[in-house]
Order: sequence, then C-alpha cells, then structure tokens
Amino acid sequence: MKLAVIEGDGVGKEVIPVALEVLDAFGLDVEKVPLELGYGRWERTGAAITDEDIDLLKGCDCVLFGAVTTPPDPNYKSVLLTIRKELDMYANIRPIRPLPSIKGIHDRTDFNYIIVRENTEGLYSGIEEIGEDVSTTKRVITRKGSKRIADYASKLAGSRTNKLTIVHKSNVMKSDKLFLDVCRQSATDAGVTPSDELVDSFAYNLIRNPWNYDVIVTTNLFGDILSDMSGALVGGLGLLPSANIGEKYAFFEPVHGSAPDIAGRNIANPLATVLSLKMLLEWHGDMAEAGILEEAIDTSLNHGICTPDLGGKSSTSEVGEFLANYIKTR
Amino acid sequence: MKLAVIEGDGVGKEVIPVALEVLDAFGLDVEKVPLELGYGRWERTGAAITDEDIDLLKGCDCVLFGAVTTPPDPNYKSVLLTIRKELDMYANIRPIRPLPSIKGIHDRTDFNYIIVRENTEGLYSGIEEIGEDVSTTKRVITRKGSKRIADYASKLAGSRTNKLTIVHKSNVMKSDKLFLDVCRQSATDAGVTPSDELVDSFAYNLIRNPWNYDVIVTTNLFGDILSDMSGALVGGLGLLPSANIGEKYAFFEPVHGSAPDIAGRNIANPLATVLSLKMLLEWHGDMAEAGILEEAIDTSLNHGICTPDLGGKSSTSEVGEFLANYIKTR
Ligand SMILES: CC(C)[C@H](C(=O)O)[C@@H](O)C(=O)O
Ligand SMILES: CC(C)[C@H](C(=O)O)[C@@H](O)C(=O)O
Repeated sequence: MKLAVIEGDGVGKEVIPVALEVLDAFGLDVEKVPLELGYGRWERTGAAITDEDIDLLKGCDCVLFGAVTTPPDPNYKSVLLTIRKELDMYANIRPIRPLPSIKGIHDRTDFNYIIVRENTEGLYSGIEEIGEDVSTTKRVITRKGSKRIADYASKLAGSRTNKLTIVHKSNVMKSDKLFLDVCRQSATDAGVTPSDELVDSFAYNLIRNPWNYDVIVTTNLFGDILSDMSGALVGGLGLLPSANIGEKYAFFEPVHGSAPDIAGRNIANPLATVLSLKMLLEWHGDMAEAGILEEAIDTSLNHGICTPDLGGKSSTSEVGEFLANYIKTR
Repeated sequence: MKLAVIEGDGVGKEVIPVALEVLDAFGLDVEKVPLELGYGRWERTGAAITDEDIDLLKGCDCVLFGAVTTPPDPNYKSVLLTIRKELDMYANIRPIRPLPSIKGIHDRTDFNYIIVRENTEGLYSGIEEIGEDVSTTKRVITRKGSKRIADYASKLAGSRTNKLTIVHKSNVMKSDKLFLDVCRQSATDAGVTPSDELVDSFAYNLIRNPWNYDVIVTTNLFGDILSDMSGALVGGLGLLPSANIGEKYAFFEPVHGSAPDIAGRNIANPLATVLSLKMLLEWHGDMAEAGILEEAIDTSLNHGICTPDLGGKSSTSEVGEFLANYIKTR
C-alpha cells in the first residue's frame, strides 16, 4: 500500500503523527509519501496545492489527511475541495457510533448509523455569480451523481439492516425531486427498503431518536451539516472519522478542522484521525488490524486515557503511545 | 385588529380552534376573517390559494395560520411559500426557550435564543432548471434582502443582550460572503457585537451549548433546518412557535406541519399555535395579555395538563379549555 500522508495545518500536525505511530505498530507493509499542503505551504510558497501534488496523490492508493486552515482570502483554493474534486471522490462516509465511557446527549448508546454524503455536487458546484448587490450559487443535482451515491448507499444498506433513509428538501427544491427519485429506484433495485424525510424535521428526529436510523443518504451540504450535528450524539466533534471514496482513490480524514485555537499544545483529540485510520484499514481489507485498533481505542477510553475535551488528562501523544503499546503487546 | 384565520389541513383544524378559544377568553376587539386554504380546498376546488385570497389577506392586519398538507404533485402551489412571498414577509422569527416541566435533551434550562431566518430568498428563490439528467436550484443572496434581515436581527439583539451570531457557509459558497459582510456591517452600525460561525459546526455547538447563544441570524434554508433541530432542545416540535414579519403584514404559525398521521384524534399539541398567538399579542402591543397567556401555559404544564407527545393525558381541546378558563378566572 502506497499511502500519501498530509498533516496540513494546526492540529493536523499533532493528530497525524499519532495515527502514523499507531499504523507503524502493526508493522504492515506501507510506503508513506508525505506531502506538505495547506495554509502553511501557501504562506511559504504562494500555493496551497499544485497540479504536481495532485499527480503525486494519484500515484498513491490512498490518503491520510489531518486538517487544513482556510484563510478568508478569495484567491485561496481550498485544498480539501480541490482534492475531493480532482480525485473524483464522490462518496463521503461518516459513521456515527458511540464510544465506550464517552457520554453524548443521550443515556442510550444503542445507535450506530452512517451518513453517506454526496461529495462532488449540490451547493459545492463552484458555479457562482458574484455581484455587488446579488450573489448566487447554483445547486447542481445530476442523475449520474445521484445514482452513484445512491448505489453506494444502497449497497451499504444491503450489507447492514436493509434500511435506507433518503434525506432531501424536495417540497421546496425541485432539484431534490431528481435526487429522491434516483435514490428510491436504486434502493428498490438493490432490494433495500427506502424511506425518506425532509431535512428539517429529519434534523430533529435524528437528534431525538438516533436509534431509528441505519444508512442515511443525502446531498452534499445537508450531509455536511448533519454529520457535524451528529457529533453531539457521540460526545464530541473530535470523535468523528470520515472516508472520501471514489472509483480509484480513497481519502481518510477526521471531520474536524485544524482548530488553530488549541493547536501546538498537545491537547488535540487524535481519535477522529485514529478512527479514520481504522476506516482505511477496513477499506484496505486489513480486518484483523481494524479489529485490534478498535479494541485498543475502547481500552484506552475504559482506562480514562483521553484528552481534555473528553474530560481526560492525557496529551495527544500520550493517547498515541497507549494505543501503539496496546497493539504491540497484544 | 382584523385577523385572518387559516386552519388549513390536518391538525391545523384542531390547534387553531384552541388558539381562538384562548384569544376569545381575553375579550379583545378582534374581527376574525376565516379563510379556507390548502390541500382540502384544492381537492374541492382545484386551487389551494387564489389571487382573491391574497387580496383578502392583504386587507387584514395579521394572520393566524395552522398547517397545510402539501401533496407531491408538481402543479400544487405551496400555500405557505405563496403567502410569505406575496405578503413579502422577510423575517421568520423562531424563539427557542424551554417550557416548565418539559424536558429537552439537556438538564440545564437556562437558554433562550431566537433564530431570525431570512424568509424570501436563498434556496427558496424558485429559480430552478429541471431536466431529465440535471436539475438545478439557484441560491440567491441579495444585498437588499440581507440588509433588511440583518437590520431586524441587529435591532432585536440590541433590545436583548447585544450579541448576534451570524450563521453561514462562506468557506464554500461565495454567496454567503455577501450575507456575512452585510450582517457584520449592520450589527456594527447598530452597536451590537457580531460573531459568526459556519453552519456545520454551528449545528453541533447549538445542540451542545444552547446557552451560548442569543440572537442568531441566518439564510432561509439554514434557518429552516436549525429551527426544527432546536425542537430537540425544548422537548418537541409541537412546542415551537413562529412569526413571519414584513413591512406591512405579520403572520403567525406553529413550526410543525399538518401531521396527517395524528390528525382527527384530538391529541395534537396546541402549544406551538398558542405560543404563536402569544407572539401575535406581543406584536400587536397587547403585552398584559401576552404575559397572562404565558402564565396560563406555565400553569397548565406545571399541572401536567398536556397532550400525549409531552407525556400528558389531556386532549387538544382539554388543553384549550384549561387555558381559556385560567384566563377568564384570573
Ligand atoms: C472545510 C469544509 C470545506 C468541509 C466541507 O464543507 O465539506 C468540511 O466542513 C467537511 O465537512 O469536510
Ligand atoms: C413547509 C415548508 C415549505 C416550510 C419551509 O421549508 O419553510 C416549513 O418547513 C417551515 O419551516 O415553515
């Protein structure tokens, strides 16, 4: 496996080393290709990401990504959005599952759902008209884009409980009628039972009754909002991993950002990144390793080895050491 | 006061009579103009709302609205969106505040914030291109539209704690840069301190720490999602009132819909509508009555007089009787 490694900015520089320490503990055959991308690189060279970087990424099997800072400068090209687009990673997979000993907003912990977010179109089209008095963004829904994400989600639902919830706002936006129709058809073709909800009341229902859901498929920005929101259910944004998946490439990253306010203090929670590494291992077929990593994380939490955001007293690197040690001595 | 009264469909036909019973208990000088609008009317006459209805509404001072059912038929014109647009009610005001004895997802109840939702543009522009393979919706942000909602929110913030949170997604949509800039300027001009958050992490922060917010201003669809989501904080969608305000007209309605699944059983929670009536009284300057109505609601809840969704055993009409009696005998 040829793995591109991007620390990025801020806490990215602290959480990625932890994930690598954990990965190294398994002694797998991995060739690591480090890349410097993001705001720091932009300040130094004037470019946050270049065509050569994209080529380099395309030469790797997958990517492990920390976080980048995006300045308000309109000339700054978002590294994350550029990579998602250039590598055509159309599916953003965000599993939401409580971890042991960590309390979210509910006492019940019997929920475990996955948000499958369309990752290339919708309001992220980049088609904008910027004027002094009127600015517009075109929300683009295509049959092709909807079908591939719907097929991904339907297949995933088929491998789980056969339940798929389609989240949309087709009572207001006709563009979502296309998305809804395609998703329903895809689910039915895959032998999965689709239901659908409007995004507004769904946001309410998801917070109230997360145990009612399994696989959720939705458009780009709704997925963005609903996944961050879900952080409240599991006890923190520092616990949410994600995978960006395309036909050829896969890219793993924590849902959180570069958190400049806490960067450089060795207190950032590395678990979102370590859980993203677990998704990488699963994607690569290293199921035994993924299982051990889950065990390691559960053990660390049950021992209270965690960062201050979770009420713990451990530093970022101490969490990494614990996990790596657990893996090595198991 | 000349008040248009629209029951609409489903539970609208049960909650509006309760609100009217409560209103009547005050003995105020109100001329009521009942209008039949919505799906039932459409089935009967082929039109959910007509130009004559709009003229009638324009001849009233304000509107009390229940809920309407919107069928998936693409030829059906949304009653609610039509009225908001034709009466140019640009501000959708949704206060979020816990009620006594009703538990939301937190034990703490010391929060009380107001979502000020832009109500005429954004993704509700209606500018759509519907194709077989590509469908688009234009998200429209105008300086004028942003300024009037920003001014409304800034003024409201000035009358409260002087804190305004602007919620946007300008890291992805440049159209939100316009919204953000205009809101910041408006706040500063009004002597209010603006802060701003990206909608995704804001959704997380609002669920986690609602007590950190006071007045929140945002674009149309974000306001739609964030307000329903807020229902989880106060214990139910059946508890959220709203006001749609324009230069000339004002329109009061529960945030919830027509709930066909529970309609006709006299179990719908009338409090969202009664709280909307309270907003109407405040808007009209009937502060003493609004205060008494709040007392009546608090008393009913403290006595456990509430509908099954809140864990109570009372019917819709029993809640109405209690409130009306409280008002009359006080
Ligand atoms: C940083 C930002 C562009 C990104 C997004 O909006 O997709 C982030 O919020 C995410 O969820 O990965
Ligand atoms: C019914 C629907 C068109 C409406 C909206 O999206 O505005 C509703 O959800 C609301 O919040 O008032």
